[in-house]
Amino acid sequence: MAMANELIERRARLLGPNVPTFYADPVHITRGAGSYLWDADGQRYLDAYNNVAHCGHCHPKVVEAISAQAARLNTHTRYLHEGILDYAEALLARFGPGLDQLLMTCTGSEANDVALRMAQAATGKRGFIATDNTYHGNTTAVAHLSTRRPPIGGWPDHIRRVPAPDSLAPLGGTAEAQAEAFAANIATAIAELEAADHGFAGLMLCPIFANEGMPGIAPGFLDPTVDLVRRAGGLILCDEVQPGFGRIGSHFWGHDWLGFSPDVVTLGKPMGNGHPVAGVVARPATMAAFREAFGYFNTFGGNPVSCAAALAVLEVIEEEGLQENARDVGAYLLTGLQELSHPLIHDARGLGLFLGLELARDGAPAGEEAARIVEEMRARHVLMGRVGRAQHILKIRPPMVFSRDDADMLLAALDASFRAIPA
Amino acid sequence: MAMANELIERRARLLGPNVPTFYADPVHITRGAGSYLWDADGQRYLDAYNNVAHCGHCHPKVVEAISAQAARLNTHTRYLHEGILDYAEALLARFGPGLDQLLMTCTGSEANDVALRMAQAATGKRGFIATDNTYHGNTTAVAHLSTRRPPIGGWPDHIRRVPAPDSLAPLGGTAEAQAEAFAANIATAIAELEAADHGFAGLMLCPIFANEGMPGIAPGFLDPTVDLVRRAGGLILCDEVQPGFGRIGSHFWGHDWLGFSPDVVTLGKPMGNGHPVAGVVARPATMAAFREAFGYFNTFGGNPVSCAAALAVLEVIEEEGLQENARDVGAYLLTGLQELSHPLIHDARGLGLFLGLELARDGAPAGEEAARIVEEMRARHVLMGRVGRAQHILKIRPPMVFSRDDADMLLAALDASFRAIPA
Repeated sequence: MAMANELIERRARLLGPNVPTFYADPVHITRGAGSYLWDADGQRYLDAYNNVAHCGHCHPKVVEAISAQAARLNTHTRYLHEGILDYAEALLARFGPGLDQLLMTCTGSEANDVALRMAQAATGKRGFIATDNTYHGNTTAVAHLSTRRPPIGGWPDHIRRVPAPDSLAPLGGTAEAQAEAFAANIATAIAELEAADHGFAGLMLCPIFANEGMPGIAPGFLDPTVDLVRRAGGLILCDEVQPGFGRIGSHFWGHDWLGFSPDVVTLGKPMGNGHPVAGVVARPATMAAFREAFGYFNTFGGNPVSCAAALAVLEVIEEEGLQENARDVGAYLLTGLQELSHPLIHDARGLGLFLGLELARDGAPAGEEAARIVEEMRARHVLMGRVGRAQHILKIRPPMVFSRDDADMLLAALDASFRAIPA
Repeated sequence: MAMANELIERRARLLGPNVPTFYADPVHITRGAGSYLWDADGQRYLDAYNNVAHCGHCHPKVVEAISAQAARLNTHTRYLHEGILDYAEALLARFGPGLDQLLMTCTGSEANDVALRMAQAATGKRGFIATDNTYHGNTTAVAHLSTRRPPIGGWPDHIRRVPAPDSLAPLGGTAEAQAEAFAANIATAIAELEAADHGFAGLMLCPIFANEGMPGIAPGFLDPTVDLVRRAGGLILCDEVQPGFGRIGSHFWGHDWLGFSPDVVTLGKPMGNGHPVAGVVARPATMAAFREAFGYFNTFGGNPVSCAAALAVLEVIEEEGLQENARDVGAYLLTGLQELSHPLIHDARGLGLFLGLELARDGAPAGEEAARIVEEMRARHVLMGRVGRAQHILKIRPPMVFSRDDADMLLAALDASFRAIPA
């Protein structure tokens, strides 16, 4: 604790105020392996939060790929190199017809920032739609799609927000009515953008609505919306930063589970197991329109080290059957979550190793209670987060090597944590 | 060549059109060390272009730092970790009074995107000024500061461009009048932004005007501008992505050479010797205003591996005397450039290991001839680039381990290249 206090003081002095940390008593992590992290005192924590360490913390094959390539060559893409091409081939083989080209960036924020301009280039229009409870990154342009804080000068008029699907208060009043009600709000927003002379360039969304709290939607949910967007001439920009790379178990991408083919797909967090690499996959016509209009170059994007890291991640997913593990352990864990018994637990749901436990009291979201559970779990050495409109949904999104034993440990800690707080 | 053609075909198929490459016959690079790169046939090239490989390509100390930390822990900054704090202390010790806090990103583009919002948060205003011949990165917001291509919907009204200083056609008619003329144009732009109700948030510039062609300005050049910007309540955002980290030899930062203290400094390319790491240094009040207004978080920014790479770079600069080498070899190389004799050579200038050879014909910029020299140099296995309004200035910006022998090789190749083209 003395050590932690000193680090907290140094952070305030060197980094400034409001640099986010987890927990009232932040953890001082010094080492990671598989599903586990260790603090400076050698205490072990089960990581049920970190989707970035997709293959497990410090996976030796990824570390070796980074080390070997960093020792051989690390330069920009204005010279020819096999790395980016070998990676593009391996990655694009994972996509359905039409999604045939790749642009590489360093972060998911940069990828989403590019995706917006792809839609503008392809349509010649400026307007975008996103949900009213989401986050697509931290650049100026994509931060405008987030509702967290108003930008200086106010929200731009060419961005419209539609109500997110919700499990506690479904759009249209019922779960069945939600898909049509979501599409109807999109139609209104498109009409508004056109009336304001911005025109409609695209809709950006996460196909499992991760930040919105993974509401209990089913395949086909977006069908009315996709149809509508296409008829209006807009593009569907699918943010796979969270669900992608096999996490949802049944499919490699969220949009394949939902059953539609986006125009642009963005990738980030897990792509390099922590190495800063991200990308945008698009149809050739969309890519060409962007490359004509904007002439993009990214100094670090697609460098040989980033590509080696990303290729190793794809290989580990395949070799170790991580998608199958997500399906298997995810189903086991979901059953365990559904068997937990506590008055605050409203719903347990999710896909593969992306699960949510929704807390409510008298039908209203129980955000404070969820915060208490997260702190109780930290005391029991299990790291997890929260999502949803009121941050009332416990988010379970661990490294993909999460085992049944890990699931048992998580469930036992959850059970004890719920017993430790008032009902 | 068969191999290169195959790679070019794969690039077009997998990455799309207009992905920039250098040279009519792009080089297929497979290995790097120090100032040198090797192609797939084992041919060696002298790298006089790449400022990213600051400590030399694949510097073993940086590679070892990355490998060791990647094997131990790579996670986000919401847990406590010494890495970002040790790096911040080492970096901030290199700055003058007041520039006391650091925010870490992954790319210089992200850093400049943050810097703009820092100025908006600190001033409550929206308007920015940049020069009319520059580049500050590839996000939507910072691409608006570039004049390369118009965005969809046109240039935003809250960005104003002022004429860049120029050596062939100095502002105000003479080199002596240029500083006051530059400031006078800034004053006009500030008045325009205020009249348009945007207000004036800040001026972003590179302190050596690198992309503008490193016009022959002297310390004190910005004094009238800095005074004016401060009186107007705006911030000076100093983009040190190119000149920083000792490259200019006499000083560690471009602004220290020019003799002013910016409000915000952005860092990028050389910071991690190719590892994707970048950052923003600011005064505490500016950092606090940004952190209050925007609540920024960057998943990969400031992770332990990036910080280990960046700290190793600072240590190598110190241990190997790279700033002193830039001063020494840079002066030697500049003398050699000044001794080159050819009718097209108008001026040789620069600072440390950031040098320019300006080509002109009858007082007009000779961009095509500069392009021919770059191709001639490639044929002689020396890699270099171009800058300036007409891309008429040969840019020499090599790894900081560039030796006198390397300089001799470069000068001999330049001499032969000039002899190979018509006068």
